Amino acid sequence: MKTDLNKIMQDRNIDALLVLGDAEHNAPMYYLTGGGHVNAATLIKPRGEEATLFHNDMEREEAAKSKLKTIPYSKYPLKTLMKEAKEKKSNFGALRLQKMLEDCGVTSGKIGVYGHTDLSNSFSMLTAAQKLMPEIEFIGESGTDSVFLQAMETKTEDEIARIREMGRITTEVVGKVKAFLAEHAVDENEVLLQTDGKPLTIADVKAKINLWLAERGAENPEATIFAIGRDAGIPHSVGTESDLIRLGKTIVFDIFPCEAGGGYFYDFTRTWCLGYAPEAEQKLYDEVREVYEKVEAKLESGIPFGELQRITCELFEAQGHATPLHTDAPQEGYVHSVGHGLGVNIHEKPWARMKTKGNTLQSGVVFTLEPGLYYPSKGMGVRIENTYWARPDGSFEMLAEFDFGLVVKMRG
Amino acid sequence: MKTDLNKIMQDRNIDALLVLGDAEHNAPMYYLTGGGHVNAATLIKPRGEEATLFHNDMEREEAAKSKLKTIPYSKYPLKTLMKEAKEKKSNFGALRLQKMLEDCGVTSGKIGVYGHTDLSNSFSMLTAAQKLMPEIEFIGESGTDSVFLQAMETKTEDEIARIREMGRITTEVVGKVKAFLAEHAVDENEVLLQTDGKPLTIADVKAKINLWLAERGAENPEATIFAIGRDAGIPHSVGTESDLIRLGKTIVFDIFPCEAGGGYFYDFTRTWCLGYAPEAEQKLYDEVREVYEKVEAKLESGIPFGELQRITCELFEAQGHATPLHTDAPQEGYVHSVGHGLGVNIHEKPWARMKTKGNTLQSGVVFTLEPGLYYPSKGMGVRIENTYWARPDGSFEMLAEFDFGLVVKMRG
Repeated sequence: MKTDLNKIMQDRNIDALLVLGDAEHNAPMYYLTGGGHVNAATLIKPRGEEATLFHNDMEREEAAKSKLKTIPYSKYPLKTLMKEAKEKKSNFGALRLQKMLEDCGVTSGKIGVYGHTDLSNSFSMLTAAQKLMPEIEFIGESGTDSVFLQAMETKTEDEIARIREMGRITTEVVGKVKAFLAEHAVDENEVLLQTDGKPLTIADVKAKINLWLAERGAENPEATIFAIGRDAGIPHSVGTESDLIRLGKTIVFDIFPCEAGGGYFYDFTRTWCLGYAPEAEQKLYDEVREVYEKVEAKLESGIPFGELQRITCELFEAQGHATPLHTDAPQEGYVHSVGHGLGVNIHEKPWARMKTKGNTLQSGVVFTLEPGLYYPSKGMGVRIENTYWARPDGSFEMLAEFDFGLVVKMRG
Repeated sequence: MKTDLNKIMQDRNIDALLVLGDAEHNAPMYYLTGGGHVNAATLIKPRGEEATLFHNDMEREEAAKSKLKTIPYSKYPLKTLMKEAKEKKSNFGALRLQKMLEDCGVTSGKIGVYGHTDLSNSFSMLTAAQKLMPEIEFIGESGTDSVFLQAMETKTEDEIARIREMGRITTEVVGKVKAFLAEHAVDENEVLLQTDGKPLTIADVKAKINLWLAERGAENPEATIFAIGRDAGIPHSVGTESDLIRLGKTIVFDIFPCEAGGGYFYDFTRTWCLGYAPEAEQKLYDEVREVYEKVEAKLESGIPFGELQRITCELFEAQGHATPLHTDAPQEGYVHSVGHGLGVNIHEKPWARMKTKGNTLQSGVVFTLEPGLYYPSKGMGVRIENTYWARPDGSFEMLAEFDFGLVVKMRG
């Protein structure tokens, strides 16, 4: 949780956090500022002290909404800095950063740098800043384990309320998509037809999804997976826009929207066969469903997430499928992880990758369970996914309910 | 243009480009790959040679859509790299990067690093990679001038077609917003009312904007400015969600959506007074409109963009307003630049900041003209903005037309 930041900084021997970039669509900056139209900002948080947000003058009111201490960039006049940069053969950004750090009382120690932002400009500035301030060490942290990812791993009740609301919106939209598909007529080739007689395409369905999300104040910056047949057999294929929708083919519908502005995410997947499920598709679904239920039954407060991944692999191998447990990067079978944490990042701690330490289902974490089987060569794939919260009382709560059924009955 | 990349790399003495991150909402990666659901990718382009896109195995089909040469990360097995990382006390990402660079024939020289991506992880990897490969120099470039920004500065006809289409969508949505506002009834305090009798809020209007953009396949990752009264007087205030909409107050409506997935942007602003315009508001509008038309008349192929900024400042100062020409960071008056280039970035070259060299309105550039006046202390602000293309024949084309009028006649 955010209140753990100082403790985590101490454990990692980090003296200050430096976060660069916009307040939105930038997880660490959003986490500390709460978003808003604040662009190209700089946030400095010394260990044990409050954070200061440095911002463009034009965005002073947006910056103030963060409730943090704010300082406009005009405090560091461009002309003076430009002259100094020329004299010292350094760069403007590095010199300004030095002054901002001084104003926060940071003149030595280890500074962790963060932000989903422009790498080129930041790298250029930090390289120059490192030369300018030899008594400071600028360090990056891994994309899978950092001060922020560790703090974000456990959620407050407020954060849970926001994720739960995104879950409500997500499943409401999934319900609308299901009803929308069901009301279509089909032609003699089992292709869904629109009222004007033209076939319905994946692009048409995605347009509806975006519309229904926007209506509810959500956005999907990471796009939506709506993949049919062979594409459904490739876990991260988002689907082919021009593909038609047919009866009896597996459709993997994986939707992971966030609050507008880049806030909290939800993650949810269902696999559907419209009209009917052929025997092979039904069997694949039943196998995933069986594993899903067995793994869900293994949820236990504090269990390593990697342990659930091992169990999932063993269950799928018992069914005769290849998994990462005994196959390197399998192309078919069970080819990914059983889940991941989520919050202001769509993927964050805890991780279910095998052998990763310290990623347990401790109280406060929010994570997905999403076993799946993929056979692109057979033109099919199945995944079932829900998002869970490890409650303080040791139980697990699925944050949004929706029926699991494979076959969608057509009414058109 | 993209075809200039090798020449620009040569001019800047850069031997290879290294782009990190997702294909979407990441301008340099989008520019070279065309987008798609390709996450945490690595792109390497040696000077004079084709680019190679390295990607997660699960996203092989999405990666293939880029038409670039692709190599899945599984070519560099995790287990071997982890072992090597331990032995060499380096990190996995740096070692893999070294192997990817070798596979592209890059073993020495200057490598520019790019990407709108996770700074912490990238900085950590690049710091380790720099130690591992002393014969290579990793460099960042400025956020205002880089190989990419120089290439992106001039557009192909294909890019113009996409920006023009975004202009059509943008102005269509602006038209819908205008008609939507006009049909509302007002109460005795001149506040707009919804059909259920509740007052209309900025949040309600923004929900409609998001909806109408989504319906047209656009998104607005940078949010929309819809600010009334005092907020309209603060150029980058996005507006207060709970604010009511009243007659006779300036509303600054600045909308800058992009293609879904983070493609090409459009940028457009109108200022409206609903019902009627009080004298002071009308005067402020007339002054901005006058300057707009005078500056537009000065458009000339090859003119430095900063020259237009100087002219704009002089015109506003002649009207008695403070401007950056003779006031440092003015809080009221004309407080920003006359425009900026745009493309896959909402802000890119050419820049209109004074004294910046090499930012001219040469053939092929796309840019905004957006003079404005801001008086938060008087509860008002006015901006007018359109996007232009400097055509190959030396003329300038406004890429989407929309009436300039201040007063919106109410029909409710």
